[in-house]
Amino acid sequence: MTDLDYMARALELAAQGKGYTSPNPCVGAVVVKDGRIIGQGFHSKAGGPHAEVVAIDDAAARAPEKLAHATIYVTLEPCNHFGRTPPCTHKILNAGIGRVVVACKDPNPNVAGGGIEFLRGKGLEVVSGVMEQEALTLIEDFVWNVQNHKTPFVTLKCAATLDGYIATRTGDSQWITSSASRNFGHELRHQNDAILIGSGTLHGDDPSLTARIEGKPTRDPARIILDTRLSIQENAKVVVQNSSAPTIIVTGPECDPGKIQRLKDKGAQVLKCRVLENLLDLNDLMIRLKELSITSLLIEGGGRVAASALAAGIVNKVCYFLAPKILGANDGIPVFKGSGPEKIKDVFELVRVTTRQFGSDMLVTGYLEPRNRPVGNGK
Amino acid sequence: MTDLDYMARALELAAQGKGYTSPNPCVGAVVVKDGRIIGQGFHSKAGGPHAEVVAIDDAAARAPEKLAHATIYVTLEPCNHFGRTPPCTHKILNAGIGRVVVACKDPNPNVAGGGIEFLRGKGLEVVSGVMEQEALTLIEDFVWNVQNHKTPFVTLKCAATLDGYIATRTGDSQWITSSASRNFGHELRHQNDAILIGSGTLHGDDPSLTARIEGKPTRDPARIILDTRLSIQENAKVVVQNSSAPTIIVTGPECDPGKIQRLKDKGAQVLKCRVLENLLDLNDLMIRLKELSITSLLIEGGGRVAASALAAGIVNKVCYFLAPKILGANDGIPVFKGSGPEKIKDVFELVRVTTRQFGSDMLVTGYLEPRNRPVGNGK
Repeated sequence: MTDLDYMARALELAAQGKGYTSPNPCVGAVVVKDGRIIGQGFHSKAGGPHAEVVAIDDAAARAPEKLAHATIYVTLEPCNHFGRTPPCTHKILNAGIGRVVVACKDPNPNVAGGGIEFLRGKGLEVVSGVMEQEALTLIEDFVWNVQNHKTPFVTLKCAATLDGYIATRTGDSQWITSSASRNFGHELRHQNDAILIGSGTLHGDDPSLTARIEGKPTRDPARIILDTRLSIQENAKVVVQNSSAPTIIVTGPECDPGKIQRLKDKGAQVLKCRVLENLLDLNDLMIRLKELSITSLLIEGGGRVAASALAAGIVNKVCYFLAPKILGANDGIPVFKGSGPEKIKDVFELVRVTTRQFGSDMLVTGYLEPRNRPVGNGK
Repeated sequence: MTDLDYMARALELAAQGKGYTSPNPCVGAVVVKDGRIIGQGFHSKAGGPHAEVVAIDDAAARAPEKLAHATIYVTLEPCNHFGRTPPCTHKILNAGIGRVVVACKDPNPNVAGGGIEFLRGKGLEVVSGVMEQEALTLIEDFVWNVQNHKTPFVTLKCAATLDGYIATRTGDSQWITSSASRNFGHELRHQNDAILIGSGTLHGDDPSLTARIEGKPTRDPARIILDTRLSIQENAKVVVQNSSAPTIIVTGPECDPGKIQRLKDKGAQVLKCRVLENLLDLNDLMIRLKELSITSLLIEGGGRVAASALAAGIVNKVCYFLAPKILGANDGIPVFKGSGPEKIKDVFELVRVTTRQFGSDMLVTGYLEPRNRPVGNGK
């Protein structure tokens, strides 16, 4: 077992916390002595103990005599400041740990490197950068947010046939993707603070927009409904269902105050947003959502919302499920609806593309370069 | 090195002949003694020596004393009949080979197993089925043809954005795919006896439809142009260019005899074909092409031809290049043009799907189940 193997284990542990720790990042830690793991843990919720604390306490309970001069592997640089919990650097120091291996530095530019420096100053050996890219990807939404962006980290989810359709001409869509893909769709919901759809999808499907994963308690995302004309049915599932997360209906400025009040009485929130050329201004909306402490947003569609989100430049990441199916026609319901560029050089190009198999489907994941996101972010 | 390793080498050698051997299959062979390769070769053109002969002659030239009791690895069962060349089974026997490892049996039901039986009868050890699936895939067009199908093995090639467009609304398509993908497109042309496009693609691009691969002599495919109304320009590249392969213009029954004669005078062939509902009957055409000794056909588009080919049930295999690009709109030129089914359960579903990377693109390869090819094949 090498540093890489132990860090891979720490990353696995970190991933178990994904979706539960917002606005904190998910973090995992492993304590190793004489080639054996003697303690492990992960950060499981905001306000709960940090991963290093869980792992050291685990080692202290199982093999207290081995903690001295042990090595700790942490996916994120240990904190060196008093927050809701005391600094993890002190915990590591006091436990007698001799060596610290870190995947990535704290992405917060104000504190980056501080924990590592403190520990080195106290005579511990510290190695940084082991599986750094994997660690940064795991907490990419956190990285985006601590870097002072005024908008959430936005993921666009698509699921279509190889030729780009989300339904046949009759609207039939069950099922284009495999159950494995649909399950991972719920995992994506669980990992995001909020999920956004347009009123077309709302009226067509009356979805509940909750995260449902068998054998795992999930955190429902807040539900954001784009509904310029406040056309939502007052008994829509997203309004009347029980959920720990709010439903936020986004409308234009001129909507029926009586209907707004009735929706509020049923527990929904109504957010009035700027309208540009008859469409809700998504850049304005992103700033408003961030002010509501939404740090990560999953856009699920339909085609007009997906196309508008790309065009507005608010999308950081695309998760595109491809089923090995072909409509073989051009009369289906397309994955994007709207007007495109004249030239191929101006289409949206994904970078850092990876693929993963879900049943017979492929998930293509990629990121949009800043040149494709001309406005609204990083301001 | 195991049997698998040597057979993998034999398959690599076989693949070097791909595209040159039609109507024969490509075959590779390796002779091994005491853990060393002492001879190797592949079938390089119809009428030329078989792979076993090349490999044994190679060993006889390099290490004649080692041939006795050596092992030969062959990707296809050695032939046991006198064709253009004497039987390879005799060659193997006379060389003193002791052990024969075969990837797949001869797919021709009339002779399958005969070579293996003959060699066993002479006391040689014969193992069959090592990397069988890989070997059968490499010669899938040959397998289809010897199994008495009256149509060519048909591959449909597509290349599109993730959302299913082959060009923007203005027709701009340079370049959706990477140069690596486009190079492999030429490899596909080289591997097929013929390539088929519609008159729309002809008028739009005036393509030469030759196979161009740097550093490799290629075999041009015959060019099949679907042109119901004989609208082709008499000076189109496919008519006037120099090529070792013919251009076959497929028309409906009622076309200008003067123009037909002028095209023939320039060296093109004109094939009159049955028309159904104003479209050329592709099932009829496939039978006609097979009668012209075309055993493998690559369909390159455009959208109407691709959709018609799927709908007619003539497609065996789909090679779908996906660029990690998104038009983000629904006004581009779609990869398929036509009318699709009402229900998702009736779309075309690929099976035995594999993926491969070409630069930043993915090539998704899959096959269509017989239920998606209701007519025209296997009759």
